[in-house]
Amino acid sequence: MIRFNCDYSEGAHPKVLELLSQTNLEQTAGYGEDPYCRRAAELIRQKAACPDADVQFTIGGTQVNLIVIAASLRPHQGALCADTGHINVHESGAVEATGHKVLPVPGTDGKITAAQIQAACDAHFGDETHEHMVQPGMAYLSFSTELGTIYSKKELTEISETCRRNGLLLYVDGARLGYGLSAEGCDLTLPALAGLCDAFTIGGTKVGALFGEALVIRNSALKQDFRYILKQRGGMLAKGRLLGIQFLALLENDLYFDIAARADRQAMRIHRACAEKGWQFLSPSPTNQQFPVLPDSALSSLRQDYEVSYFGRIDESHSAVRFCTSWATRDEDVERLVRDISAL
Amino acid sequence: MIRFNCDYSEGAHPKVLELLSQTNLEQTAGYGEDPYCRRAAELIRQKAACPDADVQFTIGGTQVNLIVIAASLRPHQGALCADTGHINVHESGAVEATGHKVLPVPGTDGKITAAQIQAACDAHFGDETHEHMVQPGMAYLSFSTELGTIYSKKELTEISETCRRNGLLLYVDGARLGYGLSAEGCDLTLPALAGLCDAFTIGGTKVGALFGEALVIRNSALKQDFRYILKQRGGMLAKGRLLGIQFLALLENDLYFDIAARADRQAMRIHRACAEKGWQFLSPSPTNQQFPVLPDSALSSLRQDYEVSYFGRIDESHSAVRFCTSWATRDEDVERLVRDISAL
Amino acid sequence: MIRFNCDYSEGAHPKVLELLSQTNLEQTAGYGEDPYCRRAAELIRQKAACPDADVQFTIGGTQVNLIVIAASLRPHQGALCADTGHINVHESGAVEATGHKVLPVPGTDGKITAAQIQAACDAHFGDETHEHMVQPGMAYLSFSTELGTIYSKKELTEISETCRRNGLLLYVDGARLGYGLSAEGCDLTLPALAGLCDAFTIGGTKVGALFGEALVIRNSALKQDFRYILKQRGGMLAKGRLLGIQFLALLENDLYFDIAARADRQAMRIHRACAEKGWQFLSPSPTNQQFPVLPDSALSSLRQDYEVSYFGRIDESHSAVRFCTSWATRDEDVERLVRDISAL
Amino acid sequence: MIRFNCDYSEGAHPKVLELLSQTNLEQTAGYGEDPYCRRAAELIRQKAACPDADVQFTIGGTQVNLIVIAASLRPHQGALCADTGHINVHESGAVEATGHKVLPVPGTDGKITAAQIQAACDAHFGDETHEHMVQPGMAYLSFSTELGTIYSKKELTEISETCRRNGLLLYVDGARLGYGLSAEGCDLTLPALAGLCDAFTIGGTKVGALFGEALVIRNSALKQDFRYILKQRGGMLAKGRLLGIQFLALLENDLYFDIAARADRQAMRIHRACAEKGWQFLSPSPTNQQFPVLPDSALSSLRQDYEVSYFGRIDESHSAVRFCTSWATRDEDVERLVRDISAL
Repeated sequence: MIRFNCDYSEGAHPKVLELLSQTNLEQTAGYGEDPYCRRAAELIRQKAACPDADVQFTIGGTQVNLIVIAASLRPHQGALCADTGHINVHESGAVEATGHKVLPVPGTDGKITAAQIQAACDAHFGDETHEHMVQPGMAYLSFSTELGTIYSKKELTEISETCRRNGLLLYVDGARLGYGLSAEGCDLTLPALAGLCDAFTIGGTKVGALFGEALVIRNSALKQDFRYILKQRGGMLAKGRLLGIQFLALLENDLYFDIAARADRQAMRIHRACAEKGWQFLSPSPTNQQFPVLPDSALSSLRQDYEVSYFGRIDESHSAVRFCTSWATRDEDVERLVRDISAL
Repeated sequence: MIRFNCDYSEGAHPKVLELLSQTNLEQTAGYGEDPYCRRAAELIRQKAACPDADVQFTIGGTQVNLIVIAASLRPHQGALCADTGHINVHESGAVEATGHKVLPVPGTDGKITAAQIQAACDAHFGDETHEHMVQPGMAYLSFSTELGTIYSKKELTEISETCRRNGLLLYVDGARLGYGLSAEGCDLTLPALAGLCDAFTIGGTKVGALFGEALVIRNSALKQDFRYILKQRGGMLAKGRLLGIQFLALLENDLYFDIAARADRQAMRIHRACAEKGWQFLSPSPTNQQFPVLPDSALSSLRQDYEVSYFGRIDESHSAVRFCTSWATRDEDVERLVRDISAL
Repeated sequence: MIRFNCDYSEGAHPKVLELLSQTNLEQTAGYGEDPYCRRAAELIRQKAACPDADVQFTIGGTQVNLIVIAASLRPHQGALCADTGHINVHESGAVEATGHKVLPVPGTDGKITAAQIQAACDAHFGDETHEHMVQPGMAYLSFSTELGTIYSKKELTEISETCRRNGLLLYVDGARLGYGLSAEGCDLTLPALAGLCDAFTIGGTKVGALFGEALVIRNSALKQDFRYILKQRGGMLAKGRLLGIQFLALLENDLYFDIAARADRQAMRIHRACAEKGWQFLSPSPTNQQFPVLPDSALSSLRQDYEVSYFGRIDESHSAVRFCTSWATRDEDVERLVRDISAL
Repeated sequence: MIRFNCDYSEGAHPKVLELLSQTNLEQTAGYGEDPYCRRAAELIRQKAACPDADVQFTIGGTQVNLIVIAASLRPHQGALCADTGHINVHESGAVEATGHKVLPVPGTDGKITAAQIQAACDAHFGDETHEHMVQPGMAYLSFSTELGTIYSKKELTEISETCRRNGLLLYVDGARLGYGLSAEGCDLTLPALAGLCDAFTIGGTKVGALFGEALVIRNSALKQDFRYILKQRGGMLAKGRLLGIQFLALLENDLYFDIAARADRQAMRIHRACAEKGWQFLSPSPTNQQFPVLPDSALSSLRQDYEVSYFGRIDESHSAVRFCTSWATRDEDVERLVRDISAL
């Protein structure tokens, strides 16, 4: 059985394990106050061209999302996002457990638009009873999205301007940032993206690390006392250096982006194989997640050898599934899958 | 500079890293639903002699504490603990952030007594306005405690009976469980301890793992839907197997207890060196944390070569500090410290 | 200017004020432990034919909703409701502030169906990643709804059975219970409704009281320690008797239902006047709230003399508004409005 | 049986009921946006000499405390208070339920000192692990305190300066403000007190109203969007005018202070009667609450005719109790009590 169901089926990129092993018996201070975290943070500031940013390392994606939102919003504020947004669907109510409502708007291909954000703000502040409703305080988006899509520079710029004009924070969940920025056709760079938002994450878990998300905070108000809240929500790792070390290993020589680009290319090979069968796709994803709609017969045949993620029934004889590649996907497995699809 | 300030200055025991490396490129299901977690859970159930327990793996100590408390208590209930308890002092209000009050009672050597628990329940339910006060819903204790001390079998049995009689859950924070159970004079075994409480943790972070706490749940009500709350609070690791693998490596052949016992012995050597100087101790700790009260002059001399944890001023010329050993402490460093203390 | 915009523009029914005045200088125990609350609770148990129910009095609707939900659900559970439900729209995130997600489903005329509840449960438990999603723990519905509609006995019975079958609590927000039960065509009685749900409220604020909602709890688990949570969320009134006294005044001789029935009849007169103009309605409401869709020209004409509640633009020349009557609405004002509508 | 156990045994001062009756059938806007609330707010701003303050009306004391704290603090911050403070003892964990820790310090006669606040801040920020602890974000004090005592102008000025110097908000719970400011020997006026804090309440419930606390907010950051949070926590009364009307009735012609002063004088008569018996007092209270320590035999004799509040056992034959007077206490009842005490 070969797993294409998600992008966290393996451990870490060998370079990551190697650096963890090399440094294993060194003694350092805990809680992220060690030289590795400092160097990784500095490297991130350089690569993202935001020299004043505060960089904090946390363990997982749900965790960093809930911490950022808890640290950012006042009690009456909520986070706007696409209805497919991870915080709205797949975090077991983590945001609500911090006291904040998620404010979903209907996404298109997993994306939210500047116009939707503006409309939500207008609807809220234009309603004379707005004090009785949750105030939009932040826009949350994922890059790449839960449907594998990416925002263009123009789209993200408009969203950013809309947020600033309306006093909303813009937070980008970069659990799959590598796959997004490395996608063919992506016209955003890391510095460009960084310059457009108040905070964003660089996801490690799905892009080569054992675990870990680097949070880059550009907004001054959010920097203030952030580490208290990181600790309070269980996001401060005792051996914090494990996070710094992993991001160092991934970011030196741009390993992070190289392995992401390779996974994107693998995914596009699968995409083409599906397209050649005449299958449609749930979304126009150029990244490591592909969502073909295929005949149930084809699906049961493929499932004999491959794990895929079932996304839902489309009609009585078709289903949508997700194929994921990752930094760890082997070319021979992709080739085999492509052959098997073609042979259906 | 040699660090004796805490027990999480290094990475992981080499056996842990080795097993992580060996299994690194295997594909498994995520979120702890992999064979390694299953095997580790089964091993824990065997070693703790609680075949019906639910075993879940989480990342850190603050995290598992807040999750257990959030999952256990109704909104009006709080957790009784010694005033020195980790949840009361050093978790940035993590428990309160889940909505629950910590109910501290004055600890003796870091410990709470059955009599104090009974008195707190009597005071609460005996007060005619008890609906206006936080109801004790749980007793929390650390084993070993934040002051390095341990409960005797008799003490823990009395606490357990008191909790059951009063309808309180008993939760044992075992961040340093290994050091506690391995201490000279400890008359509790893992099965004995397990049999006395509703839930407890086996701490990995401080006893050989990179990170990780195994939570053993014996109480049926708490088992119900626990994993939702684990996810909700960011405690469910995507590559959950990393936790299972580490605990497997630690628990096979009782490595966990062997390395803890060694650290305890090292600590007692430091203890004796201090005692021979006539220094008093903050607590009668038989475990890896030692809290001598020493002259400031001696402290500044030692601090030229050693990191210790400053605990507080005792009088105008004396301070209390903490020396910690761990699974990673080198015998030669202990010997050097002992020599340096003796030479003061 | 005559207010038809809501049903809380005046103080209390004169009988309520009268009894408050009569009893004003009596001394009683506080916090609802007085003879008036006891008698009112007993009267409610009788009229609802649920002799074992726990009856608690709280101040307002948002408050009682958030308290019931906080007291009922475990952290990972949410409340299913129609998307127009008060808890989803008009409580400033009160439910989320207690840590729970509201789970809206598309309502029909403000109502949720048994089939929707079953579908939500099936979707949740049928999803292999359900631990990553909020578990439905309760169904919330309003009677009458935010759009003035009511559930039939058959509909509520099906909902009740669906909830029990799936382990969900059924909670009925009766802020406008009087107007609902008194509506022409309503085939539910208070005992019938009480017998179908785990908890419900009898709204006083909008039906003759200065303020106050009586909460009737039939579910045993929810009864347990409920008053602690009532206190914790600020819902326990020091001079609790004020609530008991008001409900006594309203429920003796069924004043509550008489005044509600009168308001419903007034509303239906307005309804007929609108219908005769050929105006459509947002919902088929038989209760004190009517939602006609009228030409903007007619609206601006009416607004010279009447306050109405603006509900939204329907097309470029039509808007939806709400007309409310209440226990305090004067017949002459209704007649004048009816005349003015007819004359448009 | 005559109740001296608390100050909320009766309804409202007749003038309050009178104005409620007079205005009962007027139609006004809801939620505190009516002319009565506006006029009452303006009157409060004048009397407190803080023309820029935001005045909001809420229902009860626990409620306003939890709302102010939820609206003021970031997640990692807590509220310093005397250990006897209402928020620490008698609100069923209301503050913790909003996510914030109460940080009690040992009170003296129910009071906290500037030195204690400074020491708490020094201890916090001086600890190198302060990110792991709850940060003091506010000082909470009661005026008069739960033990009936009052702060002098000098004490409150020092507290205010200490708070500002350390970046803490100062919030004064004035549930018994009238009794405090009217006490003999009080050298604070309403404007003086208002000028020293960021927010304070003028308690109505215990000083002549049916219910209601006026919250005066001077701090700009706290004013921002406050009403959303008021609504979210169930503190916004639909018929908000009931609060405005009651405060208007109480504040016109200083009725509020007159009735409080009378109750204080009554309490001091009881005080003198106790003192003449040689009884000690738990605190040097000059206000409407008196806490004598009396022989158990005297207590059981008095309890045949009077309700008092039991405060605790002092030694094997003595107990402490609370006698309360209020705006509603009758002189003849005080005289009778005084006679009965003297005759013991």
